[in-house]
Amino acid sequence: MATPDIAERLLAGDRRALARVVTLIENNAPETRQILARLHAHGGRAHIVGFTGSPGAGKSTLVMRLARELRRRDQRIGVIAVDPSSPFTGGAILGDRIRMQELAGDPQVFIRSMASRGSLGGLAATTRDVTRALDAAGYDIIIVETVGAGQAEVEIVRAAQSVVVVAVPGMGDDIQAIKAGILEIADIFVVNKADRPGADQTAAELRMLLSLDEHRGEHVWRVPILKTNAHTGEGVPALADALAEHLISLRETGQLAARGGQQVRSEMLALLHQALLARIEATIGPEEWDRLVTATVERSRDPYTTADELARRIGLAPSATTPP
Amino acid sequence: MATPDIAERLLAGDRRALARVVTLIENNAPETRQILARLHAHGGRAHIVGFTGSPGAGKSTLVMRLARELRRRDQRIGVIAVDPSSPFTGGAILGDRIRMQELAGDPQVFIRSMASRGSLGGLAATTRDVTRALDAAGYDIIIVETVGAGQAEVEIVRAAQSVVVVAVPGMGDDIQAIKAGILEIADIFVVNKADRPGADQTAAELRMLLSLDEHRGEHVWRVPILKTNAHTGEGVPALADALAEHLISLRETGQLAARGGQQVRSEMLALLHQALLARIEATIGPEEWDRLVTATVERSRDPYTTADELARRIGLAPSATTPP
Repeated sequence: MATPDIAERLLAGDRRALARVVTLIENNAPETRQILARLHAHGGRAHIVGFTGSPGAGKSTLVMRLARELRRRDQRIGVIAVDPSSPFTGGAILGDRIRMQELAGDPQVFIRSMASRGSLGGLAATTRDVTRALDAAGYDIIIVETVGAGQAEVEIVRAAQSVVVVAVPGMGDDIQAIKAGILEIADIFVVNKADRPGADQTAAELRMLLSLDEHRGEHVWRVPILKTNAHTGEGVPALADALAEHLISLRETGQLAARGGQQVRSEMLALLHQALLARIEATIGPEEWDRLVTATVERSRDPYTTADELARRIGLAPSATTPP
Repeated sequence: MATPDIAERLLAGDRRALARVVTLIENNAPETRQILARLHAHGGRAHIVGFTGSPGAGKSTLVMRLARELRRRDQRIGVIAVDPSSPFTGGAILGDRIRMQELAGDPQVFIRSMASRGSLGGLAATTRDVTRALDAAGYDIIIVETVGAGQAEVEIVRAAQSVVVVAVPGMGDDIQAIKAGILEIADIFVVNKADRPGADQTAAELRMLLSLDEHRGEHVWRVPILKTNAHTGEGVPALADALAEHLISLRETGQLAARGGQQVRSEMLALLHQALLARIEATIGPEEWDRLVTATVERSRDPYTTADELARRIGLAPSATTPP
């Protein structure tokens, strides 16, 4: 299938074309850029929702429940399940994921599991590109779910418009872990397994942590702390409502455009950084690069002077701070 | 004091010159690059040790004890205490830090607290540069201690040659948090507050987590799990021994040079990325950049084509994957 064809077929609603594009993105195929450039013009309509939280918090089951609830509301749903710690991709990574299969028969639901093949930055970029393809294909809500809540996962869900952080009762010291890195990205907190003892206390602790976060004061949106039971479905309609409300708030406050601008900025910088790497490779080549690195490790060169020289050679102006 | 002078005075052992250089680095002063380029040639002798772990694990007290033990072994010690979550710098950030003051009177000990002024990447770079200054000034062991164990902290200690991860008994679910991101960077685990119940169990859990980490198989070094009591000093001499052994292992296996090479590589790429940003700013300017971002958010442009055009304009070759 020729490159322009597959993009057109995806845009026309062809599900197999979409699956093919996602595979091309995952494989980092050379034609991907051209397809994505074409698809970009047709995106911007989907609501992109990130789900993160400790492994074992019941995220997969909750996402499945939410997807069902959203189907009832006649939304088309994309689910991208991302596991940065696993090198396997394309299939059902977790046992939990298998439960998603009951949704997979629905033509209005697209589910894909992805894992890390190369760098973490690469996985975040792949996730963003798959999101772009699903967006262009007309999915109303795209859920990006991560397996854990580590550095890589935070990076991945940060690109979403609404970030849901899932906690469970009685995390104890784990609340401290949430504080580092996760607290500031949460738009909605969910205490799942809310039938367990301690759910109210965990919710109260989260509320307190949020109130201590001074940056929150700048925002109009008050992060809700919802209680759910993914097994019974309790609290899931309220979560769907909260997501819809968050999207409205993002639109009304201009945050949606602002976040979109930030993401485009970092994406363009990442693309330019790629061009820089390609240029270094083409101009300097791996042998000389290694020689320069070794000389710097051995202290016969320093990194600043070397970087200035390289910048000049690849066509970037020398930095302004070189010695006169 | 002229720029070359201050570098020479630092190299001659002038403590005030060192303090001045550290301040220049923190302020991102323009003359810093020239000074660091000069100092680089005189580095490479210090053993750089990173300390991370949850807040409340007793890291500061442990670092103070370790510094005392190393002083007994006639080592000159630098301590850089880094708090990425705080905007304050230069003073004693934490109550614990005050206890360090008893060491601060020792001319063979240099202590500095640093906090985040700008970006996290900026703080990691500042920490690396301060380490470089202390290294050139002849400190034998430079301890980089972070307040917490979040994304930013991992980034900062990753640049050390030996990374100590400090845990406490009875962390429960927190062990899961350690798994994400922290496990793979640990060269030495310390279970501090080992007088508390559960110390042996926590050590056993860590041992199990380590045994599950398949990447560990590639390394010769078997990560020791030590028990300490920072208040009594118990276990601290064993920690000092383990650090010395790790350095020997790094040297013998060629890992020291390999890690050094990786760090130089990423530092040179970061410097080139800075040159790229400066070039974008000079060639394209903030207004046009914002206009391009807005057009991309509004979908009248796509990021790939825009990045290709920009790469061409700033002198980087167009990417090879543009459409024919």
